[in-house]
Parts: sequence; structure tokens; C-alpha cells
Amino acid sequence: MHAIAFIQDLAVLMLVAGLVTVLCHRLRQPVVLGYIVAGFLIGPHTGPVALISDEDTIRILAELGVVFLMFGLGLEFRLRKLLKVGPTAILAAFFEIVAMIWLGYHIGRLFAWSPMDALFLGAILAISSTTIIVKALGDLKMKHEPFAQLIFGILIVEDILGIGLIVLLSGVAASGTVEPAEVLATLGKLLLFILASLVVGLLLVPRILAYVAHFESHETLLIAVLGLCFGFCLLVIKLDYSLVLGAFLSGAIMAESRQLAQIERLVEPLRHMFSAIFFVTIGLLIDPAVLREHAWPIAAISLAVVLGKILSCSLGAFVTGHDGRTSLRVGMGLSQIGEFSFIIAALGVSLKVTSDFLYPVAVAVSAITTLTTPYLIRAAAPLSRRLSDAVPSSVARVFSAYGAWLRSIQLPGQNAVLAALIRRSLLHAVVNLALVAAIFLAGGYFAEPIDLWLDRWLPQPNLHKALIWGAALLLSLPFLLAAYHRLKALSLFLADLGGHSHRPPRVRRVLAELIPLLTFGSFLPLLAAFSSSILPPGEWLLLIGLLAAVLLALLWRWFARVHARLHSALQETLDQHEPPEPPVP
Amino acid sequence: MHAIAFIQDLAVLMLVAGLVTVLCHRLRQPVVLGYIVAGFLIGPHTGPVALISDEDTIRILAELGVVFLMFGLGLEFRLRKLLKVGPTAILAAFFEIVAMIWLGYHIGRLFAWSPMDALFLGAILAISSTTIIVKALGDLKMKHEPFAQLIFGILIVEDILGIGLIVLLSGVAASGTVEPAEVLATLGKLLLFILASLVVGLLLVPRILAYVAHFESHETLLIAVLGLCFGFCLLVIKLDYSLVLGAFLSGAIMAESRQLAQIERLVEPLRHMFSAIFFVTIGLLIDPAVLREHAWPIAAISLAVVLGKILSCSLGAFVTGHDGRTSLRVGMGLSQIGEFSFIIAALGVSLKVTSDFLYPVAVAVSAITTLTTPYLIRAAAPLSRRLSDAVPSSVARVFSAYGAWLRSIQLPGQNAVLAALIRRSLLHAVVNLALVAAIFLAGGYFAEPIDLWLDRWLPQPNLHKALIWGAALLLSLPFLLAAYHRLKALSLFLADLGGHSHRPPRVRRVLAELIPLLTFGSFLPLLAAFSSSILPPGEWLLLIGLLAAVLLALLWRWFARVHARLHSALQETLDQHEPPEPPVP
Repeated sequence: MHAIAFIQDLAVLMLVAGLVTVLCHRLRQPVVLGYIVAGFLIGPHTGPVALISDEDTIRILAELGVVFLMFGLGLEFRLRKLLKVGPTAILAAFFEIVAMIWLGYHIGRLFAWSPMDALFLGAILAISSTTIIVKALGDLKMKHEPFAQLIFGILIVEDILGIGLIVLLSGVAASGTVEPAEVLATLGKLLLFILASLVVGLLLVPRILAYVAHFESHETLLIAVLGLCFGFCLLVIKLDYSLVLGAFLSGAIMAESRQLAQIERLVEPLRHMFSAIFFVTIGLLIDPAVLREHAWPIAAISLAVVLGKILSCSLGAFVTGHDGRTSLRVGMGLSQIGEFSFIIAALGVSLKVTSDFLYPVAVAVSAITTLTTPYLIRAAAPLSRRLSDAVPSSVARVFSAYGAWLRSIQLPGQNAVLAALIRRSLLHAVVNLALVAAIFLAGGYFAEPIDLWLDRWLPQPNLHKALIWGAALLLSLPFLLAAYHRLKALSLFLADLGGHSHRPPRVRRVLAELIPLLTFGSFLPLLAAFSSSILPPGEWLLLIGLLAAVLLALLWRWFARVHARLHSALQETLDQHEPPEPPVP
Repeated sequence: MHAIAFIQDLAVLMLVAGLVTVLCHRLRQPVVLGYIVAGFLIGPHTGPVALISDEDTIRILAELGVVFLMFGLGLEFRLRKLLKVGPTAILAAFFEIVAMIWLGYHIGRLFAWSPMDALFLGAILAISSTTIIVKALGDLKMKHEPFAQLIFGILIVEDILGIGLIVLLSGVAASGTVEPAEVLATLGKLLLFILASLVVGLLLVPRILAYVAHFESHETLLIAVLGLCFGFCLLVIKLDYSLVLGAFLSGAIMAESRQLAQIERLVEPLRHMFSAIFFVTIGLLIDPAVLREHAWPIAAISLAVVLGKILSCSLGAFVTGHDGRTSLRVGMGLSQIGEFSFIIAALGVSLKVTSDFLYPVAVAVSAITTLTTPYLIRAAAPLSRRLSDAVPSSVARVFSAYGAWLRSIQLPGQNAVLAALIRRSLLHAVVNLALVAAIFLAGGYFAEPIDLWLDRWLPQPNLHKALIWGAALLLSLPFLLAAYHRLKALSLFLADLGGHSHRPPRVRRVLAELIPLLTFGSFLPLLAAFSSSILPPGEWLLLIGLLAAVLLALLWRWFARVHARLHSALQETLDQHEPPEPPVP
């Protein structure tokens, strides 16, 4: 009768959620807030009877809510768009996150919380809530104003940085300390994993989905999408990364498929159902006694969120070249916390490194700042007018001079094109080398099972290493070759740019090899360090190197063609649709 | 880390389901079969490692699969259509179910199974599989042929009878015996509950959904729909009925709302996801050792399903006036078992009344008969041709004479209209009286909590009973009045029909009261028996009766108006859309 108890819980939950969503629409409040209040009302801390008997199972479903929330976020994410929102959004988001983590950490320490609690508080305050902002801007009919576009750009960057933050926090919580070198290594590996997943995913997934879609069955497409999403999540979990990362990445990869619109329509109900459960579950965790006890920190943190975000985001937007009015509106729009904060707070609970009060405090702060968001957005325009009236004209002149100076340092005309060309070549080389690093890392990761498997036939550990390392090198050859070509072209181009194109051919040839040699000279030792666990001893290495050289000499053209085909397939996937505006939930 | 284990299980499950659904499409086999095979492959009985670690939680999700399957079936169900498919489908389905239960029971006893196992086997064989038939007819492009329409009609009736069967089996399993009187009482209460739910639901739910839909938010509509569905399931569970009944009824009620198309679109992905989990879970339960051990029963039962269903359904269709070819095609189309059988088998397991082997046997039989279905459907037309060639012409003449005779006994022209009128009047009266009975039954059901609550102010048990009984009577007055009016009109009409419309007015008046008096005279004692637990002692009853009479005399018109309004609201809901063909999954 376990199942019946669960269905009863779910029934209570959905019934209350249903009532609340209607009520919230009637009162024009965000539904998310209503779900949390509903969870609070049916929770174990309020009311004479516990209406939820099997909280564990409900909480497992809430975990599915996180998966679908993140998958949905990934579906609305566009790789191309990230490249377009450009430096402004990246800088502003980075500045905001660093500032808010710093602020949160120090507030936490001020209330004499443990360093880990304070660190998680900082992370909780760092990311604004896409859900709440989209809803508020929609209600105020401001979604298509320029400042709103900038806000969406910042939110995209925030989502990525937020996922990085979650991975980082998991690592920090596991080791208990913050070692800069370790953080860098963790981040590096994370970036490599993301890059490799994106490349492989973008090459495979859109093709798989196109094949599945030709059966023209909603059921088949949906189950295939869920299979891919959960399958990738499984891989991510096995690599000790967060589920959040897996769900988001698989969404982002599928967002580049032609079936995006269909997938979004099919996944939407699942997201609605499970995110409702997720938000109600958050409410279940709130204990009013804890709220009363921590009334002061809650008030202080709420104020810090509003003021800190307004200041840091406005400043970030202003420094990157936006006028004062837009900057203020951006800052006031981003001044709340939401779903990401809950996920980070839940992470602390599940890792057992934060105190019990942190979660309800985060929820309370989110509730307060969610309520203030629409008023702040509405107040931004009048406030900026009043501020500009109040500022003395001399200060105003300094401000506008800054904007003019910023625009003047942008590269004009042809130089901008050249800069873009160089940037592009560098990006290609870096991506190719990163893929090589990812291949060797994966080799190290899978070395153990392969070792066990090889042991049946070849009981020589060194030979195993040589085989694995050699296979990794073989797989890497096309990418190494491509990186070499790119770097050589870049080198030649830079040499010619110096204005000495009348140099003799021999000098040019030497110059052309300069950058590739320097790069590979620093990259190969790094690679050896990366793959230290599978690095065979010197004589084997020499043999593998010789074999690789022979292969390269013989199959140079073939390797180049393999890479060109992969590259154009990837390009095609990314180019195949200029995606429409992401639909708004 | 419980949640992570669960996500891993779900990931394995969805990954395998995704692969299988693609494979099934490629091999043109029903996906359901693929899911079951997939579950078998990743199950605990096969393979070296158990891929599913937390089977309990997965099984809970499978329960949700049943809810969504039944809810979806309800959404595709049309009350109006049930009235239209008429006596043919009802008779054929009833005949088939009785025959198959009888056959299954005797086969079970033949293999020396326990009576309960044999009874459940009978029930398992009774209901054919909507999913499989729709898929097979779709693949063969036969969905719009007349025999397919008749099959769909029979399937609708089967679904209802199947749900009744589940309720009945639960009762039988609880008491351990089959008492005809108890079965009748259970069925009577069930019918009353269904009727009351339908009337109240049809009055309330479409209005609620229309209100919710005007917010134009997918999320709100979906959560409200789920809230209503699960809320009703909660009520059904509390009344000790099956979840299946609640899910099906709430679907059937929502099918009469204007938002049907939207709701179907929103619920579809949920149904696909959870039914995939449900079917995979079925596969998890299969133990190949059990299958080997019971190979003979499985073969015998599969043969019995195919032959028994072909015979009983063909005969049912033929007896109700269809030609031999159509009848045979109907029989061969219905010759398999599916989702209902799994639900019934699972019921036996969860009630702990059936042996362990019954479930895998049911699954194996379903798998075999699912595979044969498309071939049987395809073979039906040629077979009927060969049969009609083989049958001697004298026998053929008897057959066609039967059809002609059947058509000849249908009422012609005006008499048919009269019969419809009488049927309608009777139906109205019966529905109204049934609602009265339902009100008193509900009063009896809720008497205990009301008693407790009243005890605080009025510590007199008899007064409580009088109050509850009086309230029930007050609520019933409009329906009693309406039943009286209908019966009186019917009585008068029948009197006039006798051709004696020239009788003096006094005689007519007496005749008019005859049927109402007779009916109420037999209904009121029945009502007293129904409500025996809340029946107050004689003097209170008298007082209540007097009060009701006074109220009736004073508010006669008002009561009539209340009923008329309710009646027209219901009529409006049922009339508001001539529903389109149910979409095919």
C-alpha cells in the first residue's frame, strides 16, 4: 500500500497546487511564489495533521523537477545567442556574481555563520531568477524593450556561470577547503567536459532526433528525447558532476536540432508538472520557527540582495557602455533570487555541509525579493529621471564622456575585421587542442575498466598503457593536425601583417612554423601531465611517436578530410536554423 | 543519495525505452511489446547485474502510469457515444466478458490453480486491449471501416465493464467469497457513485476548466487538470474504490469540457512518459524460470484467448444483427489481451490473493496474442470468404433469415418514437431517484465525522441522526419532485396510450398518480434501508416528514426551478460540442 500512500500525497500536492495556480493568476502574483506558500501550508510544520506522509518519494519527484527545469532552460538557450550577447553581458554577469558572492559571504560571517554557510549564502545570492523576471517583464509588457534584451543576455551568462558554481561548490564541499590550484583544475576539467559534450552532442544528437522524428510519432520522439536527456544525466552523474549540468547541456544540445519546436511542446507539460512539485516541496521545508528565529538575517539579506544587485548590475552595464537609464533598469530588473538559489541551497542540504536554517532563509529571501521585483522594475524609469535631474551637470558630463571614450576605443572598419579573423583562428585552434585534452582525459578515466578487460589476453601493464595512450593519440591526430594548420595560418598572417611581406620565402617559412611550434611545445608537456595515469614509459612513448609520425606522413590528407567533414557537419548543425525568439513560459 | 539512485534507475529505464521505441518503429511492431521486452532485459532476473536498484520507487511511478493511461482512456471516452453505440456493443461486450471469465476460470481450475487464481485469470482474459487494436488497425489502414467502428464501440463498453470488474474483484478479494447479494450491493453502490460523480462532475468541472482556461496559461490549465484528476482519485481511494475508476471517471468528465483538445495535448506527454515506465515495469516482473515452468498453461491460455474471443465476439456481433463477415472481423480484431489484464494481474499481486506466477503468465499471454493480432485481422476477410463458400447454402439461408427476422422486430416509425419517449421518461426518473439514493448514502458515509463535530454542541445522538437525515431529505427534495413529475407524466401518457383518453378527468387523475405512488411506495423503504445508519427514530421521522411536506407545499415552484436549472446546465454541457473523432495515439 506504499503506492497508495504516495498517490494520496501527490493528490494533495496537485490539488493544492491547482488551487494556488488559479489563485495566483487571479491576484496577478507569480505562480512560483504561490507553490512555495502552498507547500508551506500543507507542510509538516503547519497545521494539526501532516498532509504529506511519504515526503521521501515526493522529494525524489522534486529532483525530477530540477532535471526538467534545467532541461527546459537548456532548450531555451542558444549557443549562437551566447556568442552574440557578447562582452557586455559576460562582463556584467561576471561582475555581478563575484560581487554578490563576496557580499553574501561577508554578511554570513557578520552573523557569525560558519564559513561554509557563508560561502553557500554567497552562491545563493549570486544568480537572479529567469522565471520571475520573464514573468514580471511579461506582466508589465516590457519584454521587447532594449534593457530587457540586455537582461536576458545577462541571464543566459548567469545560467552558465551558475552551473559552474554548482559544480565548484560540490568540489569545495567535498574537499572542505578552497585551493586555488584545485579550483582551477576542476574548472578546467569542467570546461573540457562541456566542450567535448557539446561537440560530440552537436554532431550526434540532431541527427538522431531527425531520424526519430521521421517516424512521426509523438510518443517515439518524446521517449527518445527523454532517453537521451536521462542517459546523458547518467554519464554526468558517473563522472561525479551535478545532474543540473547534464540536464542543462542536453537541453542546450537539443536546442540546435530541427525538432526544437516539437520537443519544447512535448516537454512543456512535464516541466510544468515536476517544477510545480519542486516548488511545493521547497515550501514543505519551511519551518516558521526558523523564520522567526532568523528574522533579522532574512531582512538584512533581502536588503543586500536588492541593493547589491542594483548596484553591481547597474555598474556592470554602465561600465560596458550603456547609458545611465538603461543600466539602472537592468540592475533593478535583476534584483531578486529564485530557482537557482533553491538548487544551490538544496545542494548544501544534500551534501550535509550547510546548517538547517540556510534553506528556509534562502526561500524567505527569495519570496520577499520576488514580491518587490515588479515594483522595482516599474520604479526604475522614474527613478533614473529623478537621479539625472539631481546629478550636477559637471558629473553628468564626465559620465557621458566615459561613454564617448568607450566607443572611441573600439577598432574601426578593416581593423575590426582583422581582429575578428585572428580571434576566429585562435578559437579554432583552442577548441581543437581542448578536444585533444578531453580525449586523453577520457582515456585516463576509462583506463581502469579497459585495463581489467585487456588483462585477460595481455598481462603486461605497460603494454596496456601504451595501447590506451596510442589509441588516444590516434583519435587526436585529426584535431592536432587541424590545430597545427590554423596556428600556421595565423602565424603567417601575423608575419605579413607586420608589413614585411617582401621577406625571402625561407624566412617566411620559418616564421610560419614559429607559433605552432611554440604552442605545441607548451601543450604537449601539459598533455603528458593530464594523461600521467596512462603515460607509458619512455621507450614505448618513442615507438608510439614514431608510429604516429609515419601514420601522419602516410594519411595526412585523410586526417585533414576527416576533420573537415566533422567541422562542416558541426557548422551545418549550428547554421541550420536562425532560431526564433525562445518561447516565453 | 537516494534521489541519485532513483535518477540512475530512471535514466537506465528511459534510455532503454528510447532505444526500444525506435527499434519497434523500425520493425513495425507495437511499442508496448517493445517496452515489456526492454523491462525483461534490464530486469533482475536477466543479465549479470541488476540495472535497477530501487525497484520500489520505479513501481510507484508505474502506478502513475496506470493513472495517466486510464485518464487518457477517459478523455477519449464520450458519454454521448456510449449512448449511440447502443445495444449491439453493450450486448456483444457483455457476452464476451461473461464467456471469457467462464472460460478463464475453468482453464485455471483445469491446471489445478486455486479458485482465486482461476477467477483472476478469467478477469485477465475478459478485456481486450484498446492500445494494441488501435495500433494494429492504424497500421493496416482499416480504422474507418464499419467493422472497426463496431470494435471501438465494444472497446468502450469493455472499458466500463472492466473498471466494474476491478472494483468487484477488489471486493471479492477482500471478503474471500462471492456472495451474490454482496456483489449486487457492491455493484449498486458503484453505479450510484458513478452516476452521482458524473452528474456533479459534469455540472462543476467544465465550468471550472472554462474559468481556468481564460487565464490562457498552459501551466495553469495543466496543473488545474492534474489537481482535479488527482483530487478526485483521492476521494475515490478514500471511498475504497480503485484508483483506476477515479482516473477514468475524471477523464470522462473532462472529455465533455470545451477545453478537451488543449487538455489532451497537455496530458499526452505525461501519458507517454508514465505509460512507458508502466510497461517497462511489467517486463521487470517477468522471470524466465516462471515462464519455462508454466509453458503449457501459457500456450493453452493463449490459444483459449484467441479462439474464445473470436467465437464469443463474433457470436455477440452476429446475434445482435451483423452479417457473418463483419462479425468474424470483429471477433478476430478483439482476440488479444493487454493493459487492462496487467492492471488486473497487478491488483491480484497487490491484494496478495493470487499466486506469483499469474502475473508473468498474463504478460506472456498478452505478448503472444499481441503478436498474432495483426495477422488475425488481416486473415479475417479471406477467412470469412472461404467460410461462406464452404457453408452449405441451406445453412446460409438460415443465417440470413435470422438477420431479416431481427430487423423485422424493430419498432417501425411512430412506435419507435413513442418507445424512445417512454425510455427517456423512465431514464430521467431513475437518474433522479438514484441521485436521491446517492445523497442518502453520502449522508451515511459522512455521518461519523459530522457526529463527532456536532457532539461539541448537541450531545444527543438521535438529534444528530435527525439533522443529517433531514439535511439529506432537504437536498433530495428537488430530485424527488422531478422524479414525481416525470413518473406522473409517464403514467398519464401510458393511460392515454391505452386509447381511453375519453375517460372522466377524475379517473385520469387517479391513473396519473398510480405509477408515481407505486414507485415511491417501493423506493422509500429501500431508501430507509440504505440510510439505516442515520435513520432517526419514528417520532423524529414523522416530524421531518411533516416539515418536508410543509416546505414542499410552500416552495414547490422554487424546488422545481432549481431542478430545471441543474437539468438544463447538464444538458448544455453534454450538448455543447458534437465531439470530433477521438484522436488516435
